[in-house]
Amino acid sequence: FVLDSRLTADTIPVTDLTLCKVLLINDSRYPWLILVPKRAEKSEIHHLAEEEQATLLTEITQISEMLEAEFRPDKINIGALGNIVSQLHVHIIARNDGDAAWPGPVWGHSPATAYTAEDGEKLAQSITQKLT
Amino acid sequence: FVLDSRLTADTIPVTDLTLCKVLLINDSRYPWLILVPKRAEKSEIHHLAEEEQATLLTEITQISEMLEAEFRPDKINIGALGNIVSQLHVHIIARNDGDAAWPGPVWGHSPATAYTAEDGEKLAQSITQKLT
Repeated sequence: FVLDSRLTADTIPVTDLTLCKVLLINDSRYPWLILVPKRAEKSEIHHLAEEEQATLLTEITQISEMLEAEFRPDKINIGALGNIVSQLHVHIIARNDGDAAWPGPVWGHSPATAYTAEDGEKLAQSITQKLT
Repeated sequence: FVLDSRLTADTIPVTDLTLCKVLLINDSRYPWLILVPKRAEKSEIHHLAEEEQATLLTEITQISEMLEAEFRPDKINIGALGNIVSQLHVHIIARNDGDAAWPGPVWGHSPATAYTAEDGEKLAQSITQKLT
């Protein structure tokens, strides 16, 4: 499995779950994770095998519950778009009334505000601990 | 179960599946369906019971496969946002390179272009036949 280079460039590695790599989008304005099933050739959820789809759902729920417990957001946003990067990836974002893109979607809204290297690494490690 | 009035206003009814109402967004620029679990008090996928989550996934896959077979889109977009309408609903949209919002998300992009009453009704009926 090789991660798309644009996903590598935009994210901080977090951990691996059974099906997916977990990555933190390097945008400090939102707690924003992506799940990337380690099936490089897939671009659509419904093209995964049935049991892989079920595992993906379990992992989406696991990330959603972690974000809810840690960040107490007003809303979780989940999206599988892939119009630009076709390698299958699912966004799970903790949203709050008043955040930069609220109430619109975060995708395509405005350039990211990167974490400092230290803050990004610390958050990725803390998320890894909560997930494993 | 009572459908949120904003969802009623923006859509054409299609059919009911086991868990969800299927609605066609009244925007002729994209084949765009929403699934609304008949659980009025829920706003997050991970707040559904585990077996309801599995049924939702099955119904998302069913809609995705139907859209793919009927419209041969370049990409399926799936989203659960709910920042404006908190009643849980999942968007499933057939996207094409060059459509109005491509490659960005459709949400919040621009005002809808409604179907004619006849075209909307015909499409909703045709989708119902494919799903049942």
